[in-house]
Amino acid sequence: MELMERLETRRKTVNEALIKMLDVGDVAKLKKAMNHLPLAGGKRLRPILAMLVADAVSNKGKKTIPFGNALEIIHNFTLVHDDIMDNDDLRRGKKTVHTLFDETIAILAGDALFALAFEILATLEVNDSKIRILLKDMARVVRKISEGQQMDMDFENRLNVSEEEYLEMIEKKTAALFAMAAKGGVIIADGTEKQIKSMEEYGRLLGMGFQIWDDYLDVSAKEKRLGKPVGSDIKNGKRTLMVIHALKRLNDEERKRFLSVLGNENASLEAVNSAIALLEKVGSINYARTMAFNFTAEAKKRLDVLPQSEHKEILNDFVDFMVKRDI
Amino acid sequence: MELMERLETRRKTVNEALIKMLDVGDVAKLKKAMNHLPLAGGKRLRPILAMLVADAVSNKGKKTIPFGNALEIIHNFTLVHDDIMDNDDLRRGKKTVHTLFDETIAILAGDALFALAFEILATLEVNDSKIRILLKDMARVVRKISEGQQMDMDFENRLNVSEEEYLEMIEKKTAALFAMAAKGGVIIADGTEKQIKSMEEYGRLLGMGFQIWDDYLDVSAKEKRLGKPVGSDIKNGKRTLMVIHALKRLNDEERKRFLSVLGNENASLEAVNSAIALLEKVGSINYARTMAFNFTAEAKKRLDVLPQSEHKEILNDFVDFMVKRDI
Repeated sequence: MELMERLETRRKTVNEALIKMLDVGDVAKLKKAMNHLPLAGGKRLRPILAMLVADAVSNKGKKTIPFGNALEIIHNFTLVHDDIMDNDDLRRGKKTVHTLFDETIAILAGDALFALAFEILATLEVNDSKIRILLKDMARVVRKISEGQQMDMDFENRLNVSEEEYLEMIEKKTAALFAMAAKGGVIIADGTEKQIKSMEEYGRLLGMGFQIWDDYLDVSAKEKRLGKPVGSDIKNGKRTLMVIHALKRLNDEERKRFLSVLGNENASLEAVNSAIALLEKVGSINYARTMAFNFTAEAKKRLDVLPQSEHKEILNDFVDFMVKRDI
Repeated sequence: MELMERLETRRKTVNEALIKMLDVGDVAKLKKAMNHLPLAGGKRLRPILAMLVADAVSNKGKKTIPFGNALEIIHNFTLVHDDIMDNDDLRRGKKTVHTLFDETIAILAGDALFALAFEILATLEVNDSKIRILLKDMARVVRKISEGQQMDMDFENRLNVSEEEYLEMIEKKTAALFAMAAKGGVIIADGTEKQIKSMEEYGRLLGMGFQIWDDYLDVSAKEKRLGKPVGSDIKNGKRTLMVIHALKRLNDEERKRFLSVLGNENASLEAVNSAIALLEKVGSINYARTMAFNFTAEAKKRLDVLPQSEHKEILNDFVDFMVKRDI
């Protein structure tokens, strides 16, 4: 967790700005629902990433704060809606918005957060041509996230999801927003075209590793650290890389046993643990770990476009954090 | 309906462009769900309004089509989400998205439409400084719509909603988007600051009249024309201007009878009709009609900032259409 300590000042700065940004609107219930998840915690990885990149390019990290927080708000909006869709009760160790309030308000709070992110974008202190570029990319990313979430749900009804399909899904659902954070950081810091391209790819690869690691944590982390029950993805029937890998390798009896747990929301803790044991047995958990490492190793190479600096070193460690973290 | 005939060419042009804009994304189910409501019909009032205004300012109507359709897409996104919240099965005479597919996909389809509207905004052929202005306004309008919808829902649990509160709610929920359509039309057509302000107000007043008339239609139109059951608002417990007006005027026995229907989703057609008869009896239906006429009369006065032209005349008739239409 040493890296997060080094990033603590940035996290605090980002957080203070975020709290102010969320202090909008005069419809009390909606405001409360909008604030619930963003203020329930969160690592603020996306705004921190944008800051680090802009610092590494031209020491303009601070200038990215509104932009980074717009992405953080988008991230939170998608989580609020995802939790409704996935019927999840807990997030960051706290009740999800639709559980604390109701589904109706959770839909609206998500919509309002989405709108707020774009309001913030319009206020960035960059020239107008950059606003247009960031707008186009940001809106496209949000649509990609919806597409990724739809793919994720479609997969739940299929047993033949391929690894390629999974990778496309997480690229849309998760990696695109990290790519945007890194790319936006370069744009705001007046970086070169080459830096934009390379850092966008850095963010994408980092995001791929992040999501695979997130799936890995779901079966390996402790509930207390995770802030939600272990094995939720299995109960929700998610086709993670591990599940896709295992379905090709389990023998008939094992496969049958595994499928009795996959997507079974009423599965007991014991049943979930036996399913995880099967993933372990056929090497699927290790496979996912390795894939996560491969993506992040590739990400590191993209840092070549940055001049040497402490920030660049942190961006290097940031990659490692993504696939070592236990939260 | 004569006006709609005169607007038919515009409606067709807008529609063709809209169909093309919605032909995006490669996740089949999501795409289908996104297309369902926008292609189920609709009068396209917002894009037509933007076109008319821009034509009246400087004959630049055609230039507004992508902008107007972005607003149309936003309008549709909010309807998709509203129908989930209000549990409505029918819209434009067809199944609502969450009824045809499911709630999950309806949430996502709404989100994706929302994102698409902002992607389109980024492509407008206007200078970058205008993009920033339109972005700020458009995002703010979407948040206003969420606030208005939340107020609308909050009101359902209250018997003391005031007329002022109702007017604030419909201003956010409905009028803001019409105001944006008219304002955007002037901006894209390079109108003056005075024209921007006046036409924004025209759109707002028009939208207020439109919404009050919409509420009026819910109790007075035929189901076939309406595309949904008559009296839905009453069954949903909506605090319309008529309901607010009546609650202050019904005697104890009538009030009791009225409240047994208001918000009762299982109320029979007979019960709904008797509630409507009570609204009629105490003059609430007439009161709403008059209010709608007052708003639109005010709207017409704002047209003074436009040079004389056929388009200006149509904008005058457009106001009348809003409070004479039976669909």
